[in-house]
Formats: sequence, structure tokens, C-alpha cells
Amino acid sequence: MITGQNYIGNKLSATGTKTYKTFNPQLNIENETAFVEATPQEIDEAVQLASEAFKVFRSFSGAKKAAFLNTIADEILALDDELIQTYCMESGLPEGRAKGERGRTIGQLRMFANLVADGSWVEASIDTAIPDREPAPKPDLRKMLIPLGPIVVFGASNFPLAYSTAGGDTAAALAAGCPVIVKSHPMHSGTGELVASAVIKAAEKTGMPNGVFSNLNSSGIEVGTQLVKHPEVKGVGFTGSINGGRALYDLAAQRDEPIPVFAEMGSVNPVVMLPNALKNRGEDLAKTYAHSITLGTGQFCTNPGLLLAIKSDELTQFISALANQIVKIEPSCMLHPNIIGAYENKKAKMISQGGLRVVSDFESDVQTNYARQAITTVEGHTFLENTALHQEVFGPFSMVVQCENIKQLEAIISKLEGQLTGTLIADDDEASKHPSLISALQNRVGRLIFNGVPTGVEVCPSMTHGGPYPASTDSRFTAVGINSIKRWVRPFSYQDWPNDLLPNELKNENPLGISRLVNNNMTKDIIS
Amino acid sequence: MITGQNYIGNKLSATGTKTYKTFNPQLNIENETAFVEATPQEIDEAVQLASEAFKVFRSFSGAKKAAFLNTIADEILALDDELIQTYCMESGLPEGRAKGERGRTIGQLRMFANLVADGSWVEASIDTAIPDREPAPKPDLRKMLIPLGPIVVFGASNFPLAYSTAGGDTAAALAAGCPVIVKSHPMHSGTGELVASAVIKAAEKTGMPNGVFSNLNSSGIEVGTQLVKHPEVKGVGFTGSINGGRALYDLAAQRDEPIPVFAEMGSVNPVVMLPNALKNRGEDLAKTYAHSITLGTGQFCTNPGLLLAIKSDELTQFISALANQIVKIEPSCMLHPNIIGAYENKKAKMISQGGLRVVSDFESDVQTNYARQAITTVEGHTFLENTALHQEVFGPFSMVVQCENIKQLEAIISKLEGQLTGTLIADDDEASKHPSLISALQNRVGRLIFNGVPTGVEVCPSMTHGGPYPASTDSRFTAVGINSIKRWVRPFSYQDWPNDLLPNELKNENPLGISRLVNNNMTKDIIS
Repeated sequence: MITGQNYIGNKLSATGTKTYKTFNPQLNIENETAFVEATPQEIDEAVQLASEAFKVFRSFSGAKKAAFLNTIADEILALDDELIQTYCMESGLPEGRAKGERGRTIGQLRMFANLVADGSWVEASIDTAIPDREPAPKPDLRKMLIPLGPIVVFGASNFPLAYSTAGGDTAAALAAGCPVIVKSHPMHSGTGELVASAVIKAAEKTGMPNGVFSNLNSSGIEVGTQLVKHPEVKGVGFTGSINGGRALYDLAAQRDEPIPVFAEMGSVNPVVMLPNALKNRGEDLAKTYAHSITLGTGQFCTNPGLLLAIKSDELTQFISALANQIVKIEPSCMLHPNIIGAYENKKAKMISQGGLRVVSDFESDVQTNYARQAITTVEGHTFLENTALHQEVFGPFSMVVQCENIKQLEAIISKLEGQLTGTLIADDDEASKHPSLISALQNRVGRLIFNGVPTGVEVCPSMTHGGPYPASTDSRFTAVGINSIKRWVRPFSYQDWPNDLLPNELKNENPLGISRLVNNNMTKDIIS
Repeated sequence: MITGQNYIGNKLSATGTKTYKTFNPQLNIENETAFVEATPQEIDEAVQLASEAFKVFRSFSGAKKAAFLNTIADEILALDDELIQTYCMESGLPEGRAKGERGRTIGQLRMFANLVADGSWVEASIDTAIPDREPAPKPDLRKMLIPLGPIVVFGASNFPLAYSTAGGDTAAALAAGCPVIVKSHPMHSGTGELVASAVIKAAEKTGMPNGVFSNLNSSGIEVGTQLVKHPEVKGVGFTGSINGGRALYDLAAQRDEPIPVFAEMGSVNPVVMLPNALKNRGEDLAKTYAHSITLGTGQFCTNPGLLLAIKSDELTQFISALANQIVKIEPSCMLHPNIIGAYENKKAKMISQGGLRVVSDFESDVQTNYARQAITTVEGHTFLENTALHQEVFGPFSMVVQCENIKQLEAIISKLEGQLTGTLIADDDEASKHPSLISALQNRVGRLIFNGVPTGVEVCPSMTHGGPYPASTDSRFTAVGINSIKRWVRPFSYQDWPNDLLPNELKNENPLGISRLVNNNMTKDIIS
């Protein structure tokens, strides 16, 4: 049952007076529950509890953390229909998407459970002593990754489950040994509270310290601001807009003790279409891209908002086909009136730019909160000259840039801001003729896709979800996949430390049987 | 021969009018060469060259980069006596230290050469496609680490070779595939120019693009400021003071595109001495620590500036023994009049704090620029209440804090700022009785040492040199050892990319024979 209260550790709490409600965009009505925003005292209490919890949680075994993560997954599944219905009521997204996203969330939790149960992820490294080395003895040094401390996770509007309460950031931080304080996303605080209740149940069932997890309601910027400025908070995870992410990054950088902020802030995901591919399969590409642009009402950070190609009859035909295809797709609901409001505003602002031509815009009446998809086009030199055209329009919108030649196309790529992805559409041996174009594209993105679409982010070790700013605030990390745990850990060394006081990961006898770098060789062997 | 000019890529250049000289602190005279500070135009040219060089250098093979790094090492050795003499003239450090540090520098260059020649460091990861997976096909994803772009390295005052021109930061960045622009340290710009000439020679001999390395003279903050703000610069390495490092961090965070700054800013390196150890070997510890405190005239970032113990007769005896030992050591020269000036000022400021007692201060006359070592002591509660006492006095200075009990000692540890190291001095099974004290210490430091001294930073894979702020600006990285390369790279994924267009690290046939994570198994096998 949704109470509208905050979880301050394992205790429901609602001492504040400021309330807000979530919204059902399909029905265009407010949902019932009034959520009570966390007060400054509650926020401080949540962080202090997290800081205390960290003292023990940080040293918990991988097996114990794995049990916690797996139990969270079980408890989320046990929420069953209530969760799915709340999700749909608060997002306007269909049930299939809700179940798919729940599956992804469960999968991420179990993936991190497996990772820490195995234990090798800590990158254990051992250099044994050489007491008789000249001119000075070599000490015994042993290193592993250890957790940073309490982490604040901001729920994402567009992923109420997979990148919110117990989503990727939270799962990674808990796996690392960091307590988590979630700033619930105001658009889906009911979904958030339900998931939070599952996390709290799991924490109690598996013997976690109180404070290992809190969930705070918030409708404005105050709760998030106080959290990021709190001296006991040691890192921040965020998925959302550039404005929001940058504001948190700036707050964190201005602290007496700056802390890392990993903000994944989306991008326009440029798609480069080479001439032969357009000639040989322009019609198919138009269908594929009409689908990718409108998938999830365009509310994915990997949405293809920018298509780059060289002027030709085939490109003209492709644009026309894309325009025809996209209006055949039924419009769908956006997450919230604010989201569709922003979409309409940004679209209008974009369309008002000189030289931009609207090729197709869904013109029939649409239901309230449903987005009209649109395709626009512009000349290469116009795009180069006006950086307003480079901005993201979050929703089912895309722009085809008609370049004079490959040189101009490459110049455009080099001028783009950082991106999550870049896609190359090419036939036969077309790609091999453009090494410098590919190199320029690689330098602007975190992931290169060949003959595919950028939407769809596979959760696996080889995935990079992140990229040069503003795709993310730190391109050295990924937000998706097991390596996203690296955001919340730091290397730590023991020098000449007694074997029986070392953590199990670094003991001579390797009780966990993990892979370790011992004197420069990867091995599971014991040290004698 | 030292010209006093800048290296803008492989070209000597001195178009500016502002000049400065280095200083011989042993003789208390200026050295002869006038160094011409880089102009804004020269700075921009160096960065533009680096940006152009990056386009090809980023894809160079590990073998080619290894040849470059090894040739730098050879060319540094070929500088022979001129380098050693210049080093001594510009630092006041003895010849033995010069040669030792040159050895360390050479060793670091060759270590990174070996790392990239082997190639496995890129963390290659491959998840092969599952075309018939339901509900959606799984794409082929392949990931590796790629370089960030041009990196600016600030030379360190206290390591003219190992953490300056071709020191750890530069070697790591070049190994990663990042061009480097060095802001030469004004105290040893002659040493810097000589080393830069070796790097340039090596770059030419091994076919590196012009701009892969530049060396800029600078006596104030202008050159560094312009470099850090330059849009084409993608990362910064710094070793030095908290004020300097924080200023660069703030500049970088305020850019339109924030960039990572790894600043290693030193610390007081707390040493906890438990009662039995003090009782059983207080006299030996006093000798050991008198030596560690004065090593290199206390000019190491790992200098033990804070000794923590519980009040007892044994502690009183230890303090007295340490005081006696430290004045037996002959004073030695500091790096520069500015450094000794800062030492004397900070020492005087510290001594003026209420409750601090000077136990011993070297009182005889000392040569100009030679530092008088000092030991002070203070009560635990006084230390807790006055954070001015927590600051670093860079030089041969240490403070013994006399705590009431273990609880107060642990409270003090918890209140300390982040530190590079923490040391525990304990006998028999003393350490095992204090898990929460050790845990608190671990949470404040990057490296824990048992029954040793913090000075002496072994260069090996298991070393962590870094720690919670302000020990470094990002505790998630180390400044020493092969993993310091991770500061200058980002993960990058290819999705469904044609095998013949992939980099060698990710090709099916594994032409480099490197270790790769293939479908979750580490292997050197080919993919069929």
C-alpha cells in the first residue's frame, strides 16, 4: 500500500507539511496519494543513518550483499500487480513496457549479486615483499577496491524502475558496499515508494544495518540540493536533463570536499548514413528509423535525434519516406504534462530556427498528453553555423542534416557536443573508405553502432553507456553494466599488513578463491 | 644545452618578453639561464598541435607507443651529467637523490612501455551476438579503453624528474595515447627543458606526430590557467599544494565542458602508535621516525606530520626520545627560498596555536635555505577543537597528539581530512583488538601501513597513491603505478562493428594475443 511517506532508513516518516501528487497522463488526472516531501531534519537523519550503516555495511562479504540484492529482486517481484499498475498510472507507459522494465531491473540486481558473490570484481592485486632488495627492501603491498560511502541516487523520469529507486545506480552502489539515499522522482513517487518498501523488506530479511537505504519524497530542488551538499554524502548518481545534471555537478564541485557526480544527461545520438546504403535500402532505413525515433514516445536518452547524410536524390527520397512512415505511427502518451510541455516548447523553438524545414508533423488531433512526432531537415552549413540546432528535443523528433559533401559531414561531427552514441549506416566496403570520419565520430561518443539503431541499451559487460560531456559528466565511467560499480569505489592499499587482519580478498590463502594479480600474474593460487 | 625557450611541439620558441630564473638554494644564488614564459599564442599553438597530433597518436599501436616511451628513457639517460648537475643546481637536493629519482623516472617510463606493449591493459571485453534471442536479438558488443585527448601536466616542485616533465603523469598519459602539454615548474625549468629535449628527440626518432609533447615555461598562474581553460584540453594532472590543486579543479569544473583534474595534494599522514608498541620499542620508533620526518628535508607528500598515541609514561619517553633524535640529524637544504619561507611561516603559525608545545626545535645556526626540524605536541581535546592544527606544515615538522584514550583517538581520526596514508604501529596481537579504529583510519586514507613509515612510495601495481579529498581530488584513481593510466582513458563500445574495421584489440582473431573478457570468461582465445 502506498502511504505517501518517506523511508528514513527502515522507518516510514512524514513530519513535513509540503505535499504533492503524481499524475496519470493517459487519463489526464492527478493520482490520489499525497506525497509528503522530506524535511531538512528527515534528510539529515537519512544521511546520518547511512553514514552509521556504512561503518558496518562497507565490510560485508560479497555473499551477504548478494543475498540482499537478490532479495530486493524477489521483493520487487512480490509487489506484483500493484507495482505494474502504479507504474502505468504514474507514467502513461503501457503494461508491456512496465513488465519489461521490471525484468531489466530484476536482471540488474541479480547481475550485481552475481558479481559480488563471485568477488573478483575488487581487482585484488598483490605484490609480495622482497626483504633483501637493494638499495631498499620492497614492502608487501596489497590492493583492492573499497566503497566510497553514502551515495545519493536521483530517480529518472523516463525509467521509473530501471534507473530509479532500485535501478542501475542503486544496485551498483549497494553492490559496492555504499548505502544509498534515493531522491524519489516526483513523477512516479508511488512506484518509488513501493520499490523502496521492497528494498527495506529485503534489508530487514538479510540483516542489513538500518540506514543502508532511504527513500525521500521531493517535488522541487530543495531535497536534492541538501543531499548533494551534505558532508557525509560521498557520491551522486543522476539520469536526466543537462540543466539538472549540471546543477548537481556544480553543487558537488563547490563543496569543501568535492564529490564525484555521475550524471547521464542524454544526447542527440547522431546517425551517419553513407550514400550506397541510402541508395540500396533507403526505404527500409526509413521504416527502421521511424520506429526508433518514436519508440517509447521518443523518451529514451539514445533516441536518434540527428540524421546526417550527403545531399542526393536518394537522400531526398529517404526524407520523404521517413516523413511518410513516421505519421503512420500512432502517437503515444508522454510521461507527464511537464514532459510534453517541454517537448512542444523545444520543438517549437527548434522549428523557429532559420533554415529549418518541417518535413512532416503529425497533424491530426491527438489525445491530451500524446506527442505529435515530427521530422525536420536543414542544410549542412546552416547546422554548422547555428548551435541552437544541435540541442536535444526530448521526444519523437528528429532532424535530417543535408551535407554538401563528406568533408562538411566530418566538420559537423567534429563540432558536435559529446554524445552517448554514434551510428554508421553503410553498405559493403563503404565504411572502410572513411577512417577519419569514423575516428571523428568515435571521438565524440561513448558507443559506435554499425547498421543498427541507437535505441536499446544491452546490459552486459561490454556496454558503455556514457560519453564525452554533456552525454555524461565523467566519460571515464559507464552507467550501465557491471563496470558501473566502478563509479562508487576507490582503490585502497595495505602495506605490510598482517595476513589475519587483511580482508579475505587479500589474504594469502585466498579463501574466496577469486582471481588476483599476484606479482603481475593473474591467478587464483594461494600465496605460500 | 639549456636555451630558456619553450618547446611548442618539436620547435623551440621564445616570442614572449617575460622571463624568470631558477635558483640554487645551496649557494643562495640565481642560476644563469633566463627562461622565457610562454605567450598566449604559443600556449594556443601547443594545444592546437596536441589536438591535431591526437587524431593519429590515439590509434598508434602499443608497440609504437612503447618504442616512444623506451626511447624517452634512453634519451634522458643520455643527458647524463648535465641533467644531474642541473637538477642539483635547481633543487638543492644531493646527487644521490638526483640519480635515484632519475632511476625512478626511467623505471616508470619503461613500466608503461611494457604495459602498452603487452596490450591487455585496455580491458578488452567482448559479448558476442545472439541473433535468435527472444524477445529481441542480442547485438555484438565489444569494449576497450581509449584515450581522452590532450592532457596538461603540471610539474611538481618536490620531484623535478619523477613527477614533472616526463614523470608519472606524462608517462601514463602518453602510454594511454594522449598528447601531453607540460607546464614546467618554475623552480626547475632547466631540468624541465633538458628532459623535454629528450622527449622531443624520442618523438622524432620514433615517428610521433609533431605536437605529441610540448613544454611551456611559466612563473605565475597565467599559463596554467589558460591551459586548463582551453577547450581542446581534456584532462589535467597536478602534484602540489591544496591551494594550487583546488584552483585548477575549480577552473576545470567551471568550464562549459568540465574536464577531470587529478590533483595529488599531500597530507599529514597520521601515524597511530598503540601502547604496547610504544612500551616495547619506543626508543627504536623514535629513531625511525626522526629519520622519516626529516627524509628529503620533509619534502615528501607522505611525510609523517601527525603522530597519535594515548597518554602514558611511555609516550612521554617516546616524545623525549624523538626530540633528542631529531636534533641529532643535520639540517638540510629546502628546494627554494619560497619553500623554506612557507615552511617557516606555517611552522610559526602552527606554534602560535593555543595549547601547542614545542618539544624540540633545531636551535643552532643553520645555513641559508636549510630547514630547522621541529617536534611539537598537543593534547587530544585541543587538537579536536582546533582544525588549524590539522593542516600540513610542508617540511621536517611533526606533531604528537596525546589522546586521553582510544575513543578520543578514534574520534580524532574520524575528524581528519582525507589522507594519502595512515600508519599503524602495534605489537603482537594489539592491532586485532581495534577493528573500529582501523576501519575509521581506512576510511580517511588511500594506503594503510603496518609497523613502517609512510615515506617511500613503491612503484608497483598494488600501490595506491591518492586518497579522499584533499589527499587527491578524485580518490577513485591512483597517481602512482600502472593503474594511474586509468585517469586518462574512457571505456568505449563498438556495437555490431565489422571485424576488419575493429581495432586489433577487439578483432575476432586476437592478433595481439591479449587477455580479453569474452562472454564473461577471461581468455586469450580467438573468436570463431
